[in-house]
Amino acid sequence: MEGIGIVGAGVAGLHLGLLLRGHGVPVTIYSDRTAEQLAGGRIPNTVAHHHATVERERLLGVDHWDIEEYGYFGHHHYIGGPQPLRFPGFFAAPSRALDYRIYLPRLLSDFVERGGEFEVRPVQAVDVEELSQRHDLVVIATGRGSMGAMFPRRADKSPYDTPQRKLCGGLYEGVAHSEPKGVTMSISPGHGELLAIPMYSFAGHVTALLFEAVPGGEFEVLTATRYDDDPATFEKLVLKTISEHHPTIFERIDPAAFRLTGPQDLLQGAVVPSVREDYTRLPNGRYVVAVGDVHTVVDPVIGQGANSASYSAWELGQTILEDQNFDERFCKKVARRREDRVHAVSDWTNLMIRTPPPPHLLELLGAMSQNQAIADTFTDNFSYPERQWDILATPERTRNFLTGHGMS
Amino acid sequence: MEGIGIVGAGVAGLHLGLLLRGHGVPVTIYSDRTAEQLAGGRIPNTVAHHHATVERERLLGVDHWDIEEYGYFGHHHYIGGPQPLRFPGFFAAPSRALDYRIYLPRLLSDFVERGGEFEVRPVQAVDVEELSQRHDLVVIATGRGSMGAMFPRRADKSPYDTPQRKLCGGLYEGVAHSEPKGVTMSISPGHGELLAIPMYSFAGHVTALLFEAVPGGEFEVLTATRYDDDPATFEKLVLKTISEHHPTIFERIDPAAFRLTGPQDLLQGAVVPSVREDYTRLPNGRYVVAVGDVHTVVDPVIGQGANSASYSAWELGQTILEDQNFDERFCKKVARRREDRVHAVSDWTNLMIRTPPPPHLLELLGAMSQNQAIADTFTDNFSYPERQWDILATPERTRNFLTGHGMS
Repeated sequence: MEGIGIVGAGVAGLHLGLLLRGHGVPVTIYSDRTAEQLAGGRIPNTVAHHHATVERERLLGVDHWDIEEYGYFGHHHYIGGPQPLRFPGFFAAPSRALDYRIYLPRLLSDFVERGGEFEVRPVQAVDVEELSQRHDLVVIATGRGSMGAMFPRRADKSPYDTPQRKLCGGLYEGVAHSEPKGVTMSISPGHGELLAIPMYSFAGHVTALLFEAVPGGEFEVLTATRYDDDPATFEKLVLKTISEHHPTIFERIDPAAFRLTGPQDLLQGAVVPSVREDYTRLPNGRYVVAVGDVHTVVDPVIGQGANSASYSAWELGQTILEDQNFDERFCKKVARRREDRVHAVSDWTNLMIRTPPPPHLLELLGAMSQNQAIADTFTDNFSYPERQWDILATPERTRNFLTGHGMS
Repeated sequence: MEGIGIVGAGVAGLHLGLLLRGHGVPVTIYSDRTAEQLAGGRIPNTVAHHHATVERERLLGVDHWDIEEYGYFGHHHYIGGPQPLRFPGFFAAPSRALDYRIYLPRLLSDFVERGGEFEVRPVQAVDVEELSQRHDLVVIATGRGSMGAMFPRRADKSPYDTPQRKLCGGLYEGVAHSEPKGVTMSISPGHGELLAIPMYSFAGHVTALLFEAVPGGEFEVLTATRYDDDPATFEKLVLKTISEHHPTIFERIDPAAFRLTGPQDLLQGAVVPSVREDYTRLPNGRYVVAVGDVHTVVDPVIGQGANSASYSAWELGQTILEDQNFDERFCKKVARRREDRVHAVSDWTNLMIRTPPPPHLLELLGAMSQNQAIADTFTDNFSYPERQWDILATPERTRNFLTGHGMS
């Protein structure tokens, strides 16, 4: 038996693998795709890494993209309605959004350079027991395939049985960056959100536009319109939707230059948010730990999934470095250690996509538009979801927070 | 409403109160006894504070007893049987045992000097709801009276329904301290343990002798013999028991000088170990947190109760300083934060008093007698019970630990 086996070469698997390699632990990562297949495939997401994640990247020695060039500094909010609100919020340190088809292969190459083993082969749930005989511990770090079924869904933490948003995320040219460079979070009440994210991709510094469409709302059509059938019609529909719902993004668009950067640079779909058990016991008595999407799936509306996966991998890795007895006590330690943040990510995200929006969330957003300290706290809490949930878990908490900021 | 109300002026209540006062939080401590009544009463325990607790005392500004004079440096083990084992283990930093009738009144005086309110009045479970209207949060920090009933006993963490040891703890003159100064832990297989603890009391530097009698074993009689009826007979019985079962303690006794330091300096009884829920919701919707004995009662055999209560109070206090929303989320944070150590105290203690002793515990004790590093780790882990439980939670863990120390 040797070291740790990680199924999945996403951000969770790679951050865990890199952390362990940094301490000389033997690690094998299994993936169903080569780095080249990943790099040449469809864009897997449009996520940004917030500064807590960037800090982990620094500690892992994979902070390859100068934050001054690739980073951004906050959120520009727009909330539509009869009296639209428009206000910024700033981070304490920059976030960074990189196309994962660039990011993940680079980290995989770091991992292999540092002595990590990388094996391309599809692993399904039925294969895990055999794998568990080969490694001291097997970690499941992919939500793909049949893996989710290994970890029962927790009804108490999974309030939705259907997607609350239909998604259409793509990379575009022809959108000028905001000043200062930031993500625009534009809300069209009743219809959903549009996130405009300054992202670095194969085409250079582009803009990811992620439509979060409320089912039945006016941008759901986008999530079901095929780009490949007629690119020009698709792009026209995107522009029309932005012009009607998201004026602060539309004003930065040059319609003549506006286009998707390529047919692979679009992702449409939807997720059912869910929280699964942290670990499972195999029939042979060995324990397997879940990390990332196979543990918790969140809607991408506040871009927390990858950050949560990285955090969760980090805490798992630290626990491995401290205790090499991979039994139920070990698994419970991991669960307890990451619970506050990982569950806060899920609870907070689920609150953001509730229809209708909860009054205390609207109250907080309203206060943000009038009080820069509140807006900055909310914005910086994208790195500290458990602190956000300290503010949003109940209407009383929001009220106490606002009172503490003189907004009673 | 003002600040935090703490019911109980034991180590948990006082450490919590002092921590909060150090940050300017208004605190009222309720007790059914004045400091004078406590000082003049029966000895409440024979506990030592290990260095993690001493460090908290330093941070609280109540480290009044010079550790060079009042401290001790490790454990002298004796395990009887056909081939007795005798070996020491050393702490990384000293422990300290003070008579709580000296210790608690001094801390109470510090608390009041620092602006804490102290109110002498008996509080029962029925009074807590009224108290909860007066304070932002009520903390129950006493196991006395009816309080336990507020917090359901957790069957999953409470393996025993009856005491596993009968207790007879008292302060004695005529016992020379060990060299280097330390606690002697003497085990008479099948009969129980005798702990000899260098303690500072009203009579100066004396020795606490705590008999931990297995029910039906040869020292159970001590726990039911009344000192007051005939002091000389009682003391003779104590001496006889020590001479028959605990030679390494007996050899330090001067029989001519041996005597209990006073009729109030003896405590006989027994405890049923139990773990209770961390918090409860009152009918008025407010939450109340348990700390110390009302949360977990452990047998005193390894002297962890007070240290665990202090730790638990500290973690509760830190959570109060971070989050003043005293709702269920707050309570769950407290529970999660202290769970690993507080449950380890309980699990480890319950393992130590299991009859017959589990083979992997005996294996570890045997290894300690042959390997100083193992003995020192076990001994220093009196400050880190969760690390002890990392070693003792399962036979596999003990084996891995011993293998890691070349004892395979």
